[in-house]
Order: sequence, then C-alpha cells, then structure tokens
Amino acid sequence: MEAISHFIAGNAYQGDDDRSGAVFNPSDGSTLYQCRYASKATLDHAVSVAAAAGRAWAKASQARRLEVIFRMRQLVVENTDKLAELIGLENGKTIADAKGEISRGLEAVDFATSVAQVTKGEYSYNVGGGIDVFSIRQPVGIVGCIAPFNFPAMVPLMMTSMAIASGNAVILKPSERVPGAAILIGELWRQAGLPDGVWNAVNGDKDVVDAILENPQIGAISFVGSTHVGEYIYQKGCAHGKRVAAYTGGKNHMVVMPDADMESAASAFVSAGYGSSSQRCMAVSLVLAVGEGTAERLRGLMVPMIEALHVGSYDDPKADFGAVVTANAKQFVEQAIAEAVTDGAELVVDGRGFVVPGLESGFYTGATLLDHVTMDMNFWKSEIFGPARGIMRVKDLDEAITITNAHEYGNGAVIFTRSGHAAHRFIEEVEAGMQGVNVAVPVPVGHHNFGGLRRSKFGDAHMFGPDAARFYTKMKTVSQRWPKPDQEEAALSLAFPGNN
Amino acid sequence: MEAISHFIAGNAYQGDDDRSGAVFNPSDGSTLYQCRYASKATLDHAVSVAAAAGRAWAKASQARRLEVIFRMRQLVVENTDKLAELIGLENGKTIADAKGEISRGLEAVDFATSVAQVTKGEYSYNVGGGIDVFSIRQPVGIVGCIAPFNFPAMVPLMMTSMAIASGNAVILKPSERVPGAAILIGELWRQAGLPDGVWNAVNGDKDVVDAILENPQIGAISFVGSTHVGEYIYQKGCAHGKRVAAYTGGKNHMVVMPDADMESAASAFVSAGYGSSSQRCMAVSLVLAVGEGTAERLRGLMVPMIEALHVGSYDDPKADFGAVVTANAKQFVEQAIAEAVTDGAELVVDGRGFVVPGLESGFYTGATLLDHVTMDMNFWKSEIFGPARGIMRVKDLDEAITITNAHEYGNGAVIFTRSGHAAHRFIEEVEAGMQGVNVAVPVPVGHHNFGGLRRSKFGDAHMFGPDAARFYTKMKTVSQRWPKPDQEEAALSLAFPGNN
Amino acid sequence: MEAISHFIAGNAYQGDDDRSGAVFNPSDGSTLYQCRYASKATLDHAVSVAAAAGRAWAKASQARRLEVIFRMRQLVVENTDKLAELIGLENGKTIADAKGEISRGLEAVDFATSVAQVTKGEYSYNVGGGIDVFSIRQPVGIVGCIAPFNFPAMVPLMMTSMAIASGNAVILKPSERVPGAAILIGELWRQAGLPDGVWNAVNGDKDVVDAILENPQIGAISFVGSTHVGEYIYQKGCAHGKRVAAYTGGKNHMVVMPDADMESAASAFVSAGYGSSSQRCMAVSLVLAVGEGTAERLRGLMVPMIEALHVGSYDDPKADFGAVVTANAKQFVEQAIAEAVTDGAELVVDGRGFVVPGLESGFYTGATLLDHVTMDMNFWKSEIFGPARGIMRVKDLDEAITITNAHEYGNGAVIFTRSGHAAHRFIEEVEAGMQGVNVAVPVPVGHHNFGGLRRSKFGDAHMFGPDAARFYTKMKTVSQRWPKPDQEEAALSLAFPGNN
Amino acid sequence: MEAISHFIAGNAYQGDDDRSGAVFNPSDGSTLYQCRYASKATLDHAVSVAAAAGRAWAKASQARRLEVIFRMRQLVVENTDKLAELIGLENGKTIADAKGEISRGLEAVDFATSVAQVTKGEYSYNVGGGIDVFSIRQPVGIVGCIAPFNFPAMVPLMMTSMAIASGNAVILKPSERVPGAAILIGELWRQAGLPDGVWNAVNGDKDVVDAILENPQIGAISFVGSTHVGEYIYQKGCAHGKRVAAYTGGKNHMVVMPDADMESAASAFVSAGYGSSSQRCMAVSLVLAVGEGTAERLRGLMVPMIEALHVGSYDDPKADFGAVVTANAKQFVEQAIAEAVTDGAELVVDGRGFVVPGLESGFYTGATLLDHVTMDMNFWKSEIFGPARGIMRVKDLDEAITITNAHEYGNGAVIFTRSGHAAHRFIEEVEAGMQGVNVAVPVPVGHHNFGGLRRSKFGDAHMFGPDAARFYTKMKTVSQRWPKPDQEEAALSLAFPGNN
Repeated sequence: MEAISHFIAGNAYQGDDDRSGAVFNPSDGSTLYQCRYASKATLDHAVSVAAAAGRAWAKASQARRLEVIFRMRQLVVENTDKLAELIGLENGKTIADAKGEISRGLEAVDFATSVAQVTKGEYSYNVGGGIDVFSIRQPVGIVGCIAPFNFPAMVPLMMTSMAIASGNAVILKPSERVPGAAILIGELWRQAGLPDGVWNAVNGDKDVVDAILENPQIGAISFVGSTHVGEYIYQKGCAHGKRVAAYTGGKNHMVVMPDADMESAASAFVSAGYGSSSQRCMAVSLVLAVGEGTAERLRGLMVPMIEALHVGSYDDPKADFGAVVTANAKQFVEQAIAEAVTDGAELVVDGRGFVVPGLESGFYTGATLLDHVTMDMNFWKSEIFGPARGIMRVKDLDEAITITNAHEYGNGAVIFTRSGHAAHRFIEEVEAGMQGVNVAVPVPVGHHNFGGLRRSKFGDAHMFGPDAARFYTKMKTVSQRWPKPDQEEAALSLAFPGNN
Repeated sequence: MEAISHFIAGNAYQGDDDRSGAVFNPSDGSTLYQCRYASKATLDHAVSVAAAAGRAWAKASQARRLEVIFRMRQLVVENTDKLAELIGLENGKTIADAKGEISRGLEAVDFATSVAQVTKGEYSYNVGGGIDVFSIRQPVGIVGCIAPFNFPAMVPLMMTSMAIASGNAVILKPSERVPGAAILIGELWRQAGLPDGVWNAVNGDKDVVDAILENPQIGAISFVGSTHVGEYIYQKGCAHGKRVAAYTGGKNHMVVMPDADMESAASAFVSAGYGSSSQRCMAVSLVLAVGEGTAERLRGLMVPMIEALHVGSYDDPKADFGAVVTANAKQFVEQAIAEAVTDGAELVVDGRGFVVPGLESGFYTGATLLDHVTMDMNFWKSEIFGPARGIMRVKDLDEAITITNAHEYGNGAVIFTRSGHAAHRFIEEVEAGMQGVNVAVPVPVGHHNFGGLRRSKFGDAHMFGPDAARFYTKMKTVSQRWPKPDQEEAALSLAFPGNN
Repeated sequence: MEAISHFIAGNAYQGDDDRSGAVFNPSDGSTLYQCRYASKATLDHAVSVAAAAGRAWAKASQARRLEVIFRMRQLVVENTDKLAELIGLENGKTIADAKGEISRGLEAVDFATSVAQVTKGEYSYNVGGGIDVFSIRQPVGIVGCIAPFNFPAMVPLMMTSMAIASGNAVILKPSERVPGAAILIGELWRQAGLPDGVWNAVNGDKDVVDAILENPQIGAISFVGSTHVGEYIYQKGCAHGKRVAAYTGGKNHMVVMPDADMESAASAFVSAGYGSSSQRCMAVSLVLAVGEGTAERLRGLMVPMIEALHVGSYDDPKADFGAVVTANAKQFVEQAIAEAVTDGAELVVDGRGFVVPGLESGFYTGATLLDHVTMDMNFWKSEIFGPARGIMRVKDLDEAITITNAHEYGNGAVIFTRSGHAAHRFIEEVEAGMQGVNVAVPVPVGHHNFGGLRRSKFGDAHMFGPDAARFYTKMKTVSQRWPKPDQEEAALSLAFPGNN
Repeated sequence: MEAISHFIAGNAYQGDDDRSGAVFNPSDGSTLYQCRYASKATLDHAVSVAAAAGRAWAKASQARRLEVIFRMRQLVVENTDKLAELIGLENGKTIADAKGEISRGLEAVDFATSVAQVTKGEYSYNVGGGIDVFSIRQPVGIVGCIAPFNFPAMVPLMMTSMAIASGNAVILKPSERVPGAAILIGELWRQAGLPDGVWNAVNGDKDVVDAILENPQIGAISFVGSTHVGEYIYQKGCAHGKRVAAYTGGKNHMVVMPDADMESAASAFVSAGYGSSSQRCMAVSLVLAVGEGTAERLRGLMVPMIEALHVGSYDDPKADFGAVVTANAKQFVEQAIAEAVTDGAELVVDGRGFVVPGLESGFYTGATLLDHVTMDMNFWKSEIFGPARGIMRVKDLDEAITITNAHEYGNGAVIFTRSGHAAHRFIEEVEAGMQGVNVAVPVPVGHHNFGGLRRSKFGDAHMFGPDAARFYTKMKTVSQRWPKPDQEEAALSLAFPGNN
C-alpha cells in the first residue's frame, strides 16, 4: 500500500519521516492508505523551499499574480468532480455535500481576484509641510495553514488563495485524516502556473504543528479546528512572535420566535443541523423555541423530517448525510447522547447503533434528536461533532439571548422571526461573530469577513473576507517630501514636529 | 507632601494601596511628590467601575459620543499651556517640545472625530438566495492602556481618544514617572461631558500591569514602551485571550545619499536626533552616510550645530532640549558613550558630565556625537534613550539597506536623497513600519496608520490611525433574509449551501 | 432703511448693483430691509476674488485647513442663538425648529473634519513592470452654491463646509428671501481664520444665477431648490462644462402598514408633515394607509393632534410652526386646498384663513388635512410647500409602492411597519434616494450620502456625505516607475502595453 | 455581399433600416462588407428588449452575475486570436497591437469580478435615536455605450463589463468603421450564460446616437471619442436627464528632463507616439525636451528608430504599425504635416506618400517627425490622429508645465526624469487626469480610475476603474428604526430632528 507524501516545491516529497498514520474510508471503515507524518527536518526543508520561492513571488507584479489566480479558478471548476470524490472518500460526506463545500471554496478563489482592490494603500497629499503620506502592503512572507478534517478542500482554498494572491508562500498542513484533497489542490496550483515552492503541503500531527509554530521564518498562522488546539496554537504562535488567526469551536444556537415561518425554520434546522453528519463548526446545534407552542409546532414538523433522513455511503446519491470521520467520533457522539438522557433530556429520535447494510464497519450514527435540553447538561456545554441535535424551550427572547451569550462559544447564532425589532435586538445583543436572520448557516459570502467571537476565535485578525488581505500583509507608511533642486534653508528645531 | 492618586469614576480615588514611588523634577533633580501605586484591589475596582460605565457608553449613539469628542478637542486646545507645564515639569522636556507633543496628541483627538466614518460596516445586497449580508462594529468593552514616560500627554490621547470614540471604557496606566498629565486629561474628559467611569487612570508599576493583564474583563491592551516589557505584555496578554497591540523600541537609521540636500539632512539629523534628549522611539539614532565625501560634508555641517545646542531646564525658553528622565537614565547614556569609545568609535562631541549652573542635581547629559560606529558595537545594537548619536560610514545604498534591516528593530527608517529610484528602493526593501523620504521623524499624520515592524511592534494590530478603530472594535457579520408573509416552500437540503 | 449687501473678500461689499428686493418678516408681514441684487459685475468681482484666494487655499496643507474647520465648528456652536434668531426672523420658522436646522448644519461641519479621511487617494504597488499607480484628489477651484429659503443656515453649511475643507473657494448665493444667515456664517468663517476671499456670498435672483452659470472660472455648482429651477441649472451648468449637483423637489410618501405602531406613526406624520409649515423638501406629504382599518385608526389619532397644533410667530415659544415664507406662498397653499376639495378630497381639518391675533399681516396658514386624496388630483401631483397634508387609502403594499413610484419625484419615502419583509421590499422596490423605516424624516446622518432619485436630483453627484468630497475634487491617477541609476535597455515595442 | 446587422436579444437582428455604410479593410483599401445603420425603430426595439431583460438581470443575485463574468473572462482568453484578427482586419492595427488591446480589455473583465467589493454599501449602527443608516447600490437600468473605432474590443469590454456586473442591461453602439468585434463580444457574452437581451449592439451613425440620447429608458451614457462629438453627447444627454461620462480628445505632452534616462525616453516616445498609427487618445503627441542639449540627444536617438519603423498590413508580423482607419484620415494627417511645415516646423522624417508594395490602395502614412513645433501652430493645437509627432524645445520645467496646461486637453501627461522633486511638481501642477512618471502611456491598471481633465472628459463620472461601479449604479440611503413590540410613547415634536 502506497503512502501519501508531502507536496513540496511542486512535487511529492519523500522525507526521512519515520512516522505515519492510517487514512480511513469512513463509509466502510476500511483503511485507504498510510499518510506519512512530517519530521521537523521535512518541515524545515519545506520552509526553506517556501522562503526562496516566496521571495521571488513577493516581487511578482499584481498582474502576474492575478493571472495565476484566474487560472486556478478555472481549474477548480474543471476538477470539481475529482475533488468531490476525494473529499467524500476520505471524509465520508456525500458527493452533493462535497460539491457544496467546493463551491464555497471557489468563492474564496473568486474573491482572491479582488486582491488588488483590497490591498490598496492610501495616499494623502500635502498633509503638512509639503509632506505626502502613503502606505503600501507587502506580504508577510510564509504563512502556515493548519486545516481541519471537516472541510478538506474549502478551508485550504480559503486559507491559501488570498495568502498567495497577496504574495506569500504557504505551507499547508491538512488534517492527517483527509490529506488527499490538499495534494490535488497543490497540483492544480502548479497547473495554474504558480511557481514551484510557493504552495506546499506537509502532512502530520501535533509534532509538525509544533515545528510550524517554532520555525522563525513562518510569519503568520491560520488555523481552523478545535478550541483546545486553537488556543494552544494562538498562545504558542504569539509567544514565537507570529501573527495568528485561530478559528475554533462553535455551538450555534438557533432561536425560533413564535412569529417565524415554522416550516422554513424546521426545514432549516434539519438541513443545517444534520448536514455533513453535523461535522461543521457552523452547524446549528440547538433550536431554542420561544414559547411552548413554538416548541410543539417545531417538534411536530421536525421529527418526521429527521426520521426520513437517509444515511449512507458518501457515494450513495440518495444519502442525506454519511458517516462521521472516525470510529472514535462515532463513539463520542453516542456517549454524549447517552449522557444527555441520563441528565434528563428526552430522547425523541435515537440514531445510535445505526448500520448501513453491507457497510457494517462504516462509522455511522443516525440522526438523533433530544428535547428539553438544559444549560446544566454537558450536551449543551460541549460541541457535539456528530448528528445529535437538541431542542431547548425558552419563555421569551430575553431568555434565548441570555442562554446564547452564556455559552463559551460565539461562532454563529441565528434567529428565525418576521419581526424587524427581534432581529435587530438579536444582532445587537448576541455575542456571536456570524449571525443569521432567517438564514440557518450564516457563513458570509466570500467578500465579507468571517470569524467568531469569544472562544470561537483567538486573535482579532481574519483569514477570510477582505480582512484576510490585511492579515496576510504588513503595512508600511511613508512620509515623503521632495527638496527643491536649489538649496533650501535648513531651520533647526528640536521641538516635536507638528503638521502645519 | 501630597501623594498623587488614581482617577476613577471621574474623581481622585484613594485606595488601600500601600506602595508608592517618587515623581522627580528631572530639571533640578528634586522630588516633586509621591505617586501611589495601585494594588490589585484598586485595579479591580477601576475595572468594575469601567465595566458598568462602559456598558452604558457602548449603547450611546454616535451623535452622543461625537459631541464629547468635539468638546474634548476644544478643551485640549484651551488647556495646552497647563498641560505643557505639567509635561515639562515631570518629564524634563522643554515647553516648546511639550507643545509639539500636545499638537500631535490633538491630532489623535481630531481624527477620533472621524470615528463614524472609519467604523462603518459594509452592506451587500442580494448576495444570493435573497440574502443580504452586512456587518457592524461594536466596542470591545474595556481597553487597558499602558503608556510610557516620554510622551506623557500624546500617547494617552492617542490611545484613549479613538477607544472612547468607538464606545469603549478605558483604564490608563501612565508611566509612574509622569502621572500628572494623565490626571489632567481625565479631568478634561469629565469637563467634555464624558460619563464618569468611562475614562480612568491608575498609577503603578509592574504589579498593576500584571493585574491589568490578568483581569478577564479587559478585552484589549494598548502598550507603548520598551521591547523587553512589550514582548512580556504581548505574550501574557495573548495568553489571557486579549487582543494586544504593543509598540516597542526603535533604532532609527537615517541614510544620506550623496545627492541629498546636505544642509537639510544635517539639520534634520540634529533636530530629530537630539530633540527631547533623544527620548523618542522615533528619534533618529544614527546617520548612515553613503560615501566618505558625504560623511565628511555631513560631519562638517553637523558638529557646529551640535556644539551650539543649548541644554537647560524645561522652562528655559532658550533650551533646545532638557534633562533625561532619571539619574539612572543619565548614567546609562554616559556608560554607553564610554563603551562605544572603548569599542573603537571616535568621540567627536562629548556631552558627558554636563551641568546646568544652578541646577547641579538635574539629570543632564549634553549632546554627544560618535563617528565610525560599526555593527559590532553595543552602541549600534542597543536603543540609546539619551542624547548620544552616531555616524556610520557605508559605501553604497546596498550596504545602508543591509545594515538597516540587520537591526532587530524596524520602527522608523529614513532616507535623504533627490532620487526617485533610491527612495523607492528604500521603501520597498527596508523592513520598517514608518519610513521617511527627506523627512526625519516619519510619524505619520493621525489619519494614517502608525506602527513598526519586526521587534518594534508585537501583534499585527494598530492603536493609531484608522486601524485603531478596528483594534478597538469587534465585528459581527449578519446574513439576513426576510420570509414573505405567506408560507414559503421549505425545501430540505443537507448539502453545504452555496450562494446562488 | 439699510440694505443688505454681499460678503466678498471677508467684508460687506457694495457693488454698482441697481436692483434690490425686500426681505420680509413672515411672522408679521413687515418688510425688514432691502437686499441688493448682484449685477454681473459684482458676481465677476466675487469670482476674481475667489479665484485668487482659492489658488492659495488649494495649496494650504490638510493640517492648515482642518484647523479652520475645527474653529468654525466651535463658532457655530457658540453662535447658535444668534443664527437661530436670524433664521426665524427672515424665514418664519420657530426658534426651536431653527435650532434643529442648525444642529443638522453643524453635522455637516462635523463631517468636514473627516475630509482628510474621505479624500484619500489609493496606492497600488507594482501593478506590473515595476510601475506603481496612485491617485490624488485636488479641489475643483471655485464652487457656486445656490441655496433655498427654507434652510437658511443648514444648506449653506452643508454646501460650503466640505467644499472649503477640500480646498475650494465658494461663492454662495443664498435665497434673496433669507440673506441674513449667510452673512453671519461668512463672518464666522472669517473669525475661524479662513483667509478672506475663500468664502463669499452674493445676493440676488435669476440674473445672478445666470451669471454664476456662465462664469467660466466656476467649476462646480451645488443647488438646492425647486425642480423647475434645478433642471434649468443642471442643463445650463452642464452646457457650460461645469459639474452640477441639483437637489430639487420632493413628494414624500409615508406608507403605514396594518402592523405598524399606530401612535408612533400618527405622531411622526404630524411632526414630519407640518414642521416648519411643511416647507421642507423632506417633509412627509401624504400618508398612504394600507387598509381601511389602518386609515380609520390613523385618522382618529391624527386629527386631534393636528387640531391641537399651535401656530404662531417664530419667537413664540409655544408655537409648533410659524408662517410660510411669503404672502404668495400662503395664497398658493390655500388655493391648492380649495382645488383638492373641488377635485373630491374630503377636507378634514381646514387651516385656511388662519390669523394670529396681533399679527394679522403675517403669512399664516393653519394645519390642514385632506382625506381620500387620489392620484388624479393636483394635490397629489404637485409639491405643496405649506401646511396642507393628505391621506391616501390603499389596499395593500403593492398599491402603496405603485403610487409612490408613479410620482415624478423620488426624494424621500417612508414605511411604518414591524415586518422585516415589508421594509425590505419597500427599500428594494421604491425608487427614492432616502428611505425611512419607522423614521419619518429620513435625512441621513452627515457621514452618509444624501440625495434623491428621478426628478428630485439632477446629476449623479452629491453635495452632502462622503460623496461630497468626490464632487468637490477632481482626481489625478499617476503611473510611476523609477529608472535605475545605470542605463537600462530600451526595448522598442509599439503594441499596446499590457500590465505584466 | 452580406451586410452586418445588429445584435439584439442574443441574435443578429434585421430591422427595417434603410441606411448602411461600408466597412473597409484599411490595409488594402477594399470594402469588406456593408454595415446596416439602425433606424430609430430598431433602437427602440433594442431598448424594449433591454428593458425587459434588464429588469430580470437587476434582480439576479451577485453570485449569479459573478458566475457569468468569470465565464466571460475565460471566453475572452480563449477567443483572443479570433478577436485580434477581426480588430486588425477592420481597424488596420497589427495583430500584436490588437492583442495588447485585448489584454487591457481583459483587465476590465478581470476587475468586474471585484464588483461585489466595489459596490458595497455602508452601514452605520445607532447614529442617534436608535436609528441605523445604511446604503445600497442598484443598477441604473439601461446603459448606452458609444464606442470609438480605435479600440474595437477594449472600449466595449471596459464599458460593458462593469455595467453588466453591476446589474444593468447595455446597448452598445460600436463605431460603424469596426462593427465586427462588438458582434463577437456579444456572442461570447451569450456563451458565458448572460441572459439574452442584457447585452445588445446596434450599428449606425449620428442618427442612432441621437435616438439613444433621446430614449427616456436609457439612464446612463458612456462615450469615448472625439471632443466635438463628446461635448454634444454630454450636453444632449444631460438635457435629457441622463448621467453621462464622455471621454474625449487628448494631446499628450511628454516632458523629458536633462537628468532622464535618454535611451528609455527616446524609445518610449517612439513606441507610445507611433503605436497603432498614433490612433490612441493616450498616444504621446509631442516631446517637450527641456534644454537644447536634451533636444539634440533625444533627436539623435529618435530619428534612427523612427526611420527603422516598419509599416505594413495588419497581418504582417514584421509591421510596427499599420494603416490609418480611412482614406480621409490619411489625407487629414498629411495635410496637417504640410501645414506644420508652412508654419515653420522642421520636417525631420517625412512619411507622406508612403506605399506598401502590393497594397497600393491601403490607407498608409509613414512615421513623420517634426522639430521646432511651437504653440502657435495648428500642429500643436489639434489632436493629430495619425503618425505625425513633434518635438518642442523648452528652457525649463516651468515652461514645460505652462505649455502642457495651456492646451485645451488634459488627458495624459508624462514626465521622464530621475528627480523626485520634478516628478512631484509635475503631478501637482499639471492639469491632466492620467499622468506618467517615466511611463509613456499612463493608462492606469483596471483597478484604478481612468479619465482626463479639462476638455478631455465631460462630466465628473468615470466608466472605468472602481468609480465605474458608482456611475453604473444609483444609491439609496435608508434610515431604519425598529419599534419595540409593546407600545412606545409617541412624542410630538415639529422641530427639525437632530441626531441624538
């Protein structure tokens, strides 16, 4: 069985790594192949390659860089099927879901074509004393991108497109669960004309993460993953003088007001709650039904929808969602369900022990719904990365906002209502970075900034949207005055200069 | 002798602090008064005051906040003499220099009147599926501002004006050497109509800094000071989940090309090098003369200017600069000079042992010039916060850029030339955040961003210029769709939603 | 009786004008004084003064200009009472209303302090071939500002503050009905330190308007007034090669949905409809009640409010509104009421023939309400600049939008509703430049653009908000490359150059 | 011989037009085919098609529109050879030159992918009284684009890409000399998925221009062409209430300072002066040599380059440039040369009577150089749209700037120098919209605004760069407040509302 290697300097790279791990097919539980884990030497090699390639790429003109981005855009479109198959195979999500992921990743490539617009400096003419002040943005150099298993293509595309468009070299560490899409994306960049060494991928686990954080030539770190790891990366990255944007966990509350369009709300909850086996940081975790009547109506609408969901292999065209990523993940979800029941939640739909005939070793858990979830339960406190969702019953908008803000995470939050006032109050008061009004997965479009608040994001920077261009560049501000050809009088003044 | 206290909730606050330190008059070496050092309990009291006041201030409308900023602007203008006297008394800088400082601080207040413009969110109409996406910025809550001794009014005004204008409460810790200006500024904010508790000052040393960094209610830290302390603050602040902007040391190289206007260059060097006894992070540290001819011409012009500089008490209207801030600072500078001579530099003008008649206990050092400074000397490696400056002789622009980039600091860098090409190359290649072309102190005007690179700034954020408004606020992005009054079809789709 | 003169070069100017007109006190019908009407020679003198002063002012630094704007801001605050008295005396509006006007004019001065931010050029580094591209904005030169009688201070402040802040000279022609405030504002600019000749006012009627439009040294025209005149000015100004922004008439429809807060809606209609005797281009003209029930509830709430309105002299502190501007205006309104009744409208409250005891010659009309107004009536088609307002009854939002869009004017439009969907649909579909959702007078705040659509504004430019800075400046875009000191190869290529 | 028709609703359209004109092959003087000239009825048909298609397109989401733009981008790349052949055939320019033109047109398509970024509205939260203010941009509706013969593909792509990306329908009237490229571009838009009727082309001359200007459904006019026609279009379009951006003639002065890189300057002059037979509004018209020495050196370098230029058929790969567009154009240039000689200019290189063997009927004029051109000659005053260029001799930069500013046109202006001061002074003082520093054709990159000053552009709007998105859209500003669910107190106040 062939092992997956790294992608360095435009080619597969076989280092001296002596560690590796298995990549599974979650849909049938089989091992697909081994993935080599990079040693520190391999990472340092990748960095030296990136440093050299990055210096040249930083000097490339905007026109030259844009040409590559536009070609890459076209190549992603043309390779959608191939990418989707790889994603589904390694991650377990359905092909339709994988294509949805790719379309959002493509949006990041699309927006990278706006790089010249969003990295413009400013020019002020004659601020005082004949001085003009202007600013330019230059790439930070090498960006380390540490990506999660749940979006094998979208997150790498989001992280690296703007980084490359603004003149950086990147070293991507994809999740060791899903290394395949990253290698294909690297290949597409090569075909797009990106010089070798500007885009590199190294595989591995915590060892290579540490090597990335400690390497002094890497100037910025983009991370998406769990809060536990993200906080570690933020602290260690900052301690090593890097700029760090770490996007971490979520617990996305969906508040449904009595005036909402109930059918839409129910449908949105099921779609946004269980899609991708709930393995999305922006998945709806819980519905907070305002008033008992709302709770009953929603439950009545949702249960049949949930029961009708078809769970199956990634390549089953009838499947609504597929397996979770590992056997451990399946076990974690099923234990969380059991614990919630013990804690007093009502188990309305039980997806535990679900088996797809013929794929008995696949990592499946069926769609599960719990009602009467409360704040004292671990089921509320923890992020559940698997298809178990819950209903909380609240008496009014005040209580809904209080609960939403009491959680440690502030990634997404959603309200379904027809009332302008309820929506506005929600937006103002809820401490979440991405909010939806009658939109269940409020991942903003690629030309807006994406990022959570509280413990859902560490650092005030962004790796998506227009602010990504700021994160991936550093600013120089120049004060410029040109002396006349003939000698000027040279007045001496040691007082602190004002602008007059 | 009365002790200076803290300014909390609009009034002087006497806590249970049991520590204090002396505030000196550097111009005569006398002790002016004691300054109380805040205990953790005092800081926590200030934070709880600020938290309550801040919640209300965050809800104040833009119109309400702007009214206060405009009034504050007027009050700073009207109180310039009073502020300048306090600055000179405690810091030692001349009144003219203090007024220069205030005029730049005023620029920050001026720019804070643009807050509504620079905190505007973005609105995208119908990005897909009838969804509008928009963003808003809200204050981070409480900002801890830790200010240095060398700009007792300017830095506090720069840090706090935009923070307050954008809806935050602030807790300022001025330098314990110069607490007076901060108290007066607090009083002016009160007169301007700022609600009590929005602006607070606590005095102290490292203990209170630690208390600020550890307090979970403080969301952002602005720091200006030494690199040693700034790095500590950045790492500790980040570890406590705060956003941190730490502006630290500088070693500002001034490159003079053979085609420069030599009289201007010489005059600029002396003004920007020795002003404020060189106690500015943006002071020119060294001139890098390109070619021996340039070195000779510059030295010939500079030496008489330096020898003519008048050093005296802050209130001596003839003084070009005054004392350094403490006896220790004086000792440090004079030792650095001695070490440089030992290391092989030529002592051209020697200001050691300088005494102002009648003020024999003042902390004076005269203007000192060393020639033939080289990269192996501590005199090049260290930031010298006192009036000893040096000449380095380089053969061409390449060498000048190499030396400038070899230093650990990247605050300011300056070139004097008439050549468009030399200036452009310098801007492109020199790794400094603020650059001057024929401008010796390239502190940009208040509507541009200020901040160094490399170890002159920790974190990618800004506390000055338009980016300050980003640093002091957090962003929410909203995806909003309004359902029609009549029931819509509720299509279920668990694939990741694209934008169509 | 003294005649009011022009304000040129910082002083009253007595030209050779042989024409003049009376300025009335509408509150008692008396003639206050004569106002000289500028001859073409007077206007040309003003232009030559402005041209010389403008050339110097255009070269003043941003710092220098901002200082003047900040001082002006303070002077307007300090002279509010004096300005309000002049406005009330000549225009007839109440002192409270005049102060409201001044506070909005002040907002324009406030926003002019953001000029440096909003006139920044852009800088792109290495777009291709080593070329940097950047842009600067420079003043257009002389701006002709033609202001209406209904906002004697606000419109002149709005027009001239940003024009001056961005480096232009201005020639203001205030309405010949209300010349006083303009002269005082000119005096305040002088006190603020604006160099003489940068701000000038000439009085007069159509003759001086023509002289302004024909003078080749005037580069831009700002106009607020009637559509008839505005269209003339736009066409003639454009034909003379000037840029023109002409803000003209309005007929502002207020749609009230059945779910609206009826008390608020009724109160908003009365306030926004009758304030300033309805002599505002942003006054609500008509309420469109959706559904008969809404119409009845609104009428029931509104009629007692309208009947209780107190009409009186500008200096009567109990007055809700005052006289209209001239005897002609009074006659026009009362005829419009009569015609509406003839056309079939129901006269619910009749304010015709209203007399203030002791002020029998004042130009008063009482508050008038008509119901069952329809689209075939002149009362709907014409802008009524006096206190007669109407109710239209519509069956649904569709009909309300259709009527609103059928009018030739598209200045303001307002909806009162609690529904997010209704508001969003209104915003999308209604062709009005300024829209209100539960806000009756949607004049946007000074940092947003103001301007109508359709025949309510001629030209796509703005004279308020950030876009004013664009209108009052012209852009230069520079492509810059610096050759190396040594000779480069000079490749000849006559193909059209791309960016590589 | 087939006649070229119009492109309406996605197909060739044969109207009832009874007029037509010949399209020539300038390279051999033959007639290629006839081009039908649209009647008013044909234009009105196109407008009604565009109106219907435009209404739907205006409602398409950003995502939907962007997809089309990205596909169009790819199609232009793939069809470059085909487009270039058509351009060369009808216009006479060389294939290499045509490809350069297409690459700049492609830049406009590229930048149209930034439309979502550059049309973002602004959002201000709680400006006062609980009101949020935000703005949106919507398409103007139908844009009439009137394009010149000299860039048959670039100008149509520039005009229409952003217009379509921002939601408008367009009616393009290409030059009747070169109708072919427009038809092909229309076909590519169709292939890109643009709904039929959004992009239309009608052919014709002044009659159809008048029909466009008079049609009330067309909201905006983009024009590039001669000043005579542009001024007419601006005045007539404005009189019909449309927004108009008219880019007209140029006379682009190139100042060469004594310190310039002479080889580069000479080469740039020949390339930018004679390329495309000088039929570019941004062609360098004249070199202003500062000092006799500069003039002699430049002339010495330029003459051999000019004499070596190869003139030939558009498809001759050795040709540096080709024929001018018509026999009339050839005659006009040759008369202008004769007149200049009569007026006293020295004829250094005479290109009159030039014949390409085998193509004796082609419209060729050889490269011509005149020296000692002066401001009193028509050769200076007129735009010469053919390969006759001149040298003016000036004594210093002052004189060079004076001459440049004395011309009625202010399109482009260029300086060659190594001096930062000379370049800065030139930028500040020269009244030209596009300036070059050591760049001979300062057409800015697509993400910057393009447009001349003085009589080189009518109207302050832009049709290129980010400002195009403003020109092609209209703004609505919304003031929004949401009432609480429970009744609020409804305070009545008729004073003009401030923001508190």
